[in-house]
Amino acid sequence: MKKATVFERTRISTEKIAVAKWACGIEWSAIQEMMWIGSRPGVLSLALGLPEIEFFPAKEYAKAVERVLENDPLAMQYGVPFEPLKSHVVTLMGQRGVECNERQIFLTTGAQQGMALLSHLLLDHGGAVICEETIYTGFQQAIQPFNPRILCVSTSLDDGMDSEAVESILASGARPAFIYVIPDGHNPMGVSLSGDKREQLVRVAQHYAIPLIEDDPYGFLNYEAEALRPLRSLDDEMVFYIGSFSKILAPGLRVGWIVAPEAMIPKIAIVKEAVDINTATFTQRTISAYLDTGHSFGHISFLREQYKLRRDAMINALQAHLADAARWRIPTSGFFVWVELLNRVNMRELLKSAVEIENVAFIPGQAFCVNGAADSKGIRLNFSYCSIDRIEEGIARLARVIKNGTHH
Amino acid sequence: MKKATVFERTRISTEKIAVAKWACGIEWSAIQEMMWIGSRPGVLSLALGLPEIEFFPAKEYAKAVERVLENDPLAMQYGVPFEPLKSHVVTLMGQRGVECNERQIFLTTGAQQGMALLSHLLLDHGGAVICEETIYTGFQQAIQPFNPRILCVSTSLDDGMDSEAVESILASGARPAFIYVIPDGHNPMGVSLSGDKREQLVRVAQHYAIPLIEDDPYGFLNYEAEALRPLRSLDDEMVFYIGSFSKILAPGLRVGWIVAPEAMIPKIAIVKEAVDINTATFTQRTISAYLDTGHSFGHISFLREQYKLRRDAMINALQAHLADAARWRIPTSGFFVWVELLNRVNMRELLKSAVEIENVAFIPGQAFCVNGAADSKGIRLNFSYCSIDRIEEGIARLARVIKNGTHH
Repeated sequence: MKKATVFERTRISTEKIAVAKWACGIEWSAIQEMMWIGSRPGVLSLALGLPEIEFFPAKEYAKAVERVLENDPLAMQYGVPFEPLKSHVVTLMGQRGVECNERQIFLTTGAQQGMALLSHLLLDHGGAVICEETIYTGFQQAIQPFNPRILCVSTSLDDGMDSEAVESILASGARPAFIYVIPDGHNPMGVSLSGDKREQLVRVAQHYAIPLIEDDPYGFLNYEAEALRPLRSLDDEMVFYIGSFSKILAPGLRVGWIVAPEAMIPKIAIVKEAVDINTATFTQRTISAYLDTGHSFGHISFLREQYKLRRDAMINALQAHLADAARWRIPTSGFFVWVELLNRVNMRELLKSAVEIENVAFIPGQAFCVNGAADSKGIRLNFSYCSIDRIEEGIARLARVIKNGTHH
Repeated sequence: MKKATVFERTRISTEKIAVAKWACGIEWSAIQEMMWIGSRPGVLSLALGLPEIEFFPAKEYAKAVERVLENDPLAMQYGVPFEPLKSHVVTLMGQRGVECNERQIFLTTGAQQGMALLSHLLLDHGGAVICEETIYTGFQQAIQPFNPRILCVSTSLDDGMDSEAVESILASGARPAFIYVIPDGHNPMGVSLSGDKREQLVRVAQHYAIPLIEDDPYGFLNYEAEALRPLRSLDDEMVFYIGSFSKILAPGLRVGWIVAPEAMIPKIAIVKEAVDINTATFTQRTISAYLDTGHSFGHISFLREQYKLRRDAMINALQAHLADAARWRIPTSGFFVWVELLNRVNMRELLKSAVEIENVAFIPGQAFCVNGAADSKGIRLNFSYCSIDRIEEGIARLARVIKNGTHH
């Protein structure tokens, strides 16, 4: 891969075939670009949201696969959703403080598919949604084909999404298809939503009969004794909770779930059948067999401890190297620290210098802005993927680039 | 499950949450209903399109999984498409008579996702498509959210889709997003497209610059010495070929592929990222490891022989029991025999009698009609899933119901 192309949006050549209108200007996402940058040999990447490879329970999972392939010939066949896996999800949700039952669980090909299915189901072409102005690009991609009107609210670095603004938008008459929220370990800003704001969002959703989509990939990875409960624990008629095995087991399996209002499950099933028939039977049954062993309880605690050490290492390194040039909050969940630079810089140039001079990568905050042109002094740093040594080295490199100053 | 509900479309209760317009009237598909009927204990199902469980290479696949989990820590991580699997697909396509390269291969979460991705990419909301009036319901579901205008052509039981009619539609000025065709082992009608018609469709697609989507889940399972080549072998700029591991390996893995015009690959990648990020890394790598062993070459030959025996058993049973009441063609590929009854019957009643009196299930042809109300004397019978004994028994039961006549 030539260096030059890294910093240019991939251009898609004009060709004979006419594509749908929404797809005429589509481009690779910033995340996808970073995937390429991060995969260049020698680049120390704080850019992506990858779990640590060493933490995958490969041996335990291998045993589960072996058991399934020996005893369960249906594992390779088409099939209906696997009830025992739904029961495991009910148990997991209990650990998050959510009471639910198997009839409310819908299994998906990963959390991203959860978002895509719900967008398909709830959002009309040209319809409206409410979300924060700086938000996970995967969500933006999921709604993009529907050419939506995006009603933006801001995010407080102290306590998350501006729920007052959400209420004002609805009070003024807007009727969006749904409100999208990441309650814990916000991507990219790291913040968790306060208890009061959770309650306000649910109250507003109920009052105006607007569904809430609660995207919670990081909720199991909380680093404080007292984790707040998901919005779903407050309501089971308006809240669609999206969960994932990607961060607590392995993303390469692509399995997640929705805890939905029960009456909506048959409709989600119809949308699902149209997009990939069913979630891989094989993977459903092997994940279920892995969970049967009870290994995941200790494993999730282990992940919490380990990622907390990495979070702390990153915070300490920031304190040592960037205390005079940036500020940040300590995230209580998730994979990311959001760092705001005190001086205005050209982010594109900063990233370019970082990769070319110091071989370190991050994601500029503006990559997450719904309004792409928005100004942002923030950068997203990931602490889950690299070892503590590499985190310290990465922050030291980054600090050199930031303080070097050629990109101002 | 209560018997009564089997014959009623599942009703979805009214609820508080507003869904997108297209989803207001959505219902379970006929295939999904049949999945339930077929899973009732004691029902001999000739209804679904399932492969034989006994034929899955579970042992060989288990070895591949073991090898991957021991040696490849990246198998559980997020990742970019796995190049060695693309190379295997190129080799498989060579067996089908299609020359292509890795840059034209796009890996999908099964063939159904291939259809959904291409519909997303090519079809505007309210746009038009050309397909046959009796066609695979999964295709109809894939396009349904786009509220398409469906331009229908008929199917000849001798040589497939009416390519003359396709040309006329285009000559009259229509500019659909694409033409959809199943070239071999048509679902549900069993027919394969003649060489002349393949050429005409490609010529027309090129002339009018309208892409062809060639859906080929059954092409590897041809039962004659001389198989015709896919349309993709005639053109690599207008034909999107959709392939699948479901019938040649196992559907429970949910992996398929698209052989696309090369310039379209980056655009498909963007749509894909929005719907499920990437095809499960774990499954990509384990399928690739299985294919590394070379087992699949012999396995596909084995499947061809075995399914041919079942096809012949079904044809012989039809000849023995239904020669005076129905007619059919011998399919040269795929999983289905299309049987047309000589006398007009109420199909719904016939199916009801079949399941309730004789415990045998099939799918009425009208379940596949784009115009749901269309009259059809055809029924789809599957010969891949049941053993030869069960096929013979199933046809004998079916003949008793058809000749009993209470459903006329």
